[in-house]
Amino acid sequence: MGVLPRVVIVGAGFGGLEVARGLARAPVEVIVVDRNNFHTFQPLLYQVATAGLNDADVAYAVRGLFHKQHNVDVRVGEVTGVDWAARSLTIADEPPLEFDHLVVGVGASVSFFGVAGADECAFPLYTLPDAVLLRNHILERFEAAAADPSLIDQGVLTFVVVGGGPTGVETAGALAELFAQVLRKDYPRVDVSRARVILVELDRRLLPPFTPASGKHALDVLTRMHVEVRTREQVERITPTSVSLASGEVIATCTLVWAAGVRANPLADVLGLEQGPGGRIVVGPDLRAPGQRDVWVVGDIALARDRKGDPLPQLAPVAMQGGRHIARQIKRALDGAPTKPFRYRNKGTMATIGRRAAVAELPGGIRLQGTLGWMAWLALHIYYLVGKRNRVSVLLNWMWMYLTWDRGPRLILRVGERDSVSRHG
Amino acid sequence: MGVLPRVVIVGAGFGGLEVARGLARAPVEVIVVDRNNFHTFQPLLYQVATAGLNDADVAYAVRGLFHKQHNVDVRVGEVTGVDWAARSLTIADEPPLEFDHLVVGVGASVSFFGVAGADECAFPLYTLPDAVLLRNHILERFEAAAADPSLIDQGVLTFVVVGGGPTGVETAGALAELFAQVLRKDYPRVDVSRARVILVELDRRLLPPFTPASGKHALDVLTRMHVEVRTREQVERITPTSVSLASGEVIATCTLVWAAGVRANPLADVLGLEQGPGGRIVVGPDLRAPGQRDVWVVGDIALARDRKGDPLPQLAPVAMQGGRHIARQIKRALDGAPTKPFRYRNKGTMATIGRRAAVAELPGGIRLQGTLGWMAWLALHIYYLVGKRNRVSVLLNWMWMYLTWDRGPRLILRVGERDSVSRHG
Repeated sequence: MGVLPRVVIVGAGFGGLEVARGLARAPVEVIVVDRNNFHTFQPLLYQVATAGLNDADVAYAVRGLFHKQHNVDVRVGEVTGVDWAARSLTIADEPPLEFDHLVVGVGASVSFFGVAGADECAFPLYTLPDAVLLRNHILERFEAAAADPSLIDQGVLTFVVVGGGPTGVETAGALAELFAQVLRKDYPRVDVSRARVILVELDRRLLPPFTPASGKHALDVLTRMHVEVRTREQVERITPTSVSLASGEVIATCTLVWAAGVRANPLADVLGLEQGPGGRIVVGPDLRAPGQRDVWVVGDIALARDRKGDPLPQLAPVAMQGGRHIARQIKRALDGAPTKPFRYRNKGTMATIGRRAAVAELPGGIRLQGTLGWMAWLALHIYYLVGKRNRVSVLLNWMWMYLTWDRGPRLILRVGERDSVSRHG
Repeated sequence: MGVLPRVVIVGAGFGGLEVARGLARAPVEVIVVDRNNFHTFQPLLYQVATAGLNDADVAYAVRGLFHKQHNVDVRVGEVTGVDWAARSLTIADEPPLEFDHLVVGVGASVSFFGVAGADECAFPLYTLPDAVLLRNHILERFEAAAADPSLIDQGVLTFVVVGGGPTGVETAGALAELFAQVLRKDYPRVDVSRARVILVELDRRLLPPFTPASGKHALDVLTRMHVEVRTREQVERITPTSVSLASGEVIATCTLVWAAGVRANPLADVLGLEQGPGGRIVVGPDLRAPGQRDVWVVGDIALARDRKGDPLPQLAPVAMQGGRHIARQIKRALDGAPTKPFRYRNKGTMATIGRRAAVAELPGGIRLQGTLGWMAWLALHIYYLVGKRNRVSVLLNWMWMYLTWDRGPRLILRVGERDSVSRHG
């Protein structure tokens, strides 16, 4: 340990990065640990999966964010647990990492809620490899249909999206647009109009966290795009060639995109801290884990509550505001001052559905939809994108898509371990 | 078979694509077969490997190139052989594909010339997965050095590039710049000045196909960038932790980039056509395989000769001009006209070494180097990049790099088969 107190931040997501930035001028040593060497802008993963953006457009090398903040060091590694007595983290294949303050912000993991076959067959959309893998899979289905059109009868061009929240709505809409605007031209000999997108939602309406009017708007827009929306429905079983719904309907398909839910990252289960619904770690009003002086939890893995006692939503703005709050509280704690409670300022939520179609709900009951909602969504996402270069690149991609109705990188690209390299003895 | 004669083009490289384009108004059915669904701009792969460009910047979906050319169809598949009696190609996991005219343009594959251990340990740089894999590997070596600086003594930051031709020179220069300009800032706690780049060339000088003055310029620039150039030297043995040279020197390193040579794609060995040095398929003056009326060979896999009888070089311009020639000859053959011989027009060759440093040799003995050579190189590569979108994106990336001395996507990203997706039962 150096002479300065060490703050170890696990997870380079929206929350963890804000903690590190907030400690820029503090007399501390900061270490950010993540299993990837990059930050992932998760809200746009669905655009990578639907060939609208490059993988590198939604990822940014963590080290590049701290060129000018010299008290931050970065480690790439998988945190597997904590030794509370030694006040150190255990990291796979690495020596333990001691801390004075610990910030846990490793987010959530996809959860299949025990749906039969999901573990083997469903496509989650939560990490960058997930997104590239789904893109590869979708394009391969179209190649298969081009080689053998009879496969369309067997559901090769049927795509089921589970979950009518923002991610599911955005993915379903982006798939429908990809097919109608781009793949129709890529595959002139395939009857792309036979491609189906089916969106399954357990609730009686789409976008349950939004107002009913927004849910209705999403339903109208998706229906106009020929997405088949099934509300009050749920998936019971998934096989490599079919999806069985609770209503008894069996859909022939080889693609189920899982946007139905997450639970806390498995790390939450091994820390020995109190957990609430979904495995989230319970935190006090100041975002500290109860009974811990120097352990803070931020973002999707934290179960923070608002003044009414309702859990705060698992959204990027909550994580970012929480991260800034924790940085301030760590500085107060170092000064011997009492901590303050976290107050989340709701700046609104939004979901895009397609070209010039989005819903945005702002504080004060302001609701935008259609083109205006889409422009608000676009501006907000570009503003929050980490790294100027990424902002420029994403903006360029979107403008290109908008002006040409073309789409981006429709690549079927696999990069595994070294044995996949080209060679010829 | 339809009523129109069918031209099957194997390989969506520079040559194959030009054949397809050249047949835009011909009364033929064109089918392009490639094992990838994208064209790879190979001359810039080294920039992907050194985190200067995105993977999608040097790749373009083949189907997207033919939205407006309705006589072209695309198949993704691995051609494994030909049945000359049936005049059909055999494709892995697909039914045979009959042809009236066959164009073979599948390029070359890396060849290790029997160097011990190369097959297991060397990193080729010939395909897009090769480039991403090398990028991952380089960045992982720096992460390892950050976690344990003693590994630097064991060569974790020593990078050997074999081959002093354009690819080797470009890769060595780009590595030295990546380390000095970017990774030095990414890893402030690592002594990046200890990172070594060693370039090994069998000939007595660099860039053997260029004039001695260009080779000398490359040597001067690389030396200024602290690249250690070993001419008249060769690699004898590669292990996961070392490289042994013919001179007896043993270099501790876990990274050997193989830019030393290629031979014809293995498909050349199973077609039963006459082969020359490097396995290249011998062609007549009109680029037809001898003894074949309707079989054409283009690009790196073809052994065409100039008027003096010297083999034409394996360069993109040769492939592109050859492709256009073949398209014209197929049209003549369909009209019953005799074919014409191919005349390669040398428009010059160039190699970049670093920022504002390149050599360009133009016809008429014109030689550019330094900034002027670099600008010529830049303009030419952007001009030849397939797809307007890619041109804009590459230009933007380069301008960004040039203005900020920053680098692009330093991502360690693996995307293999579906079992790599995130999940949490």
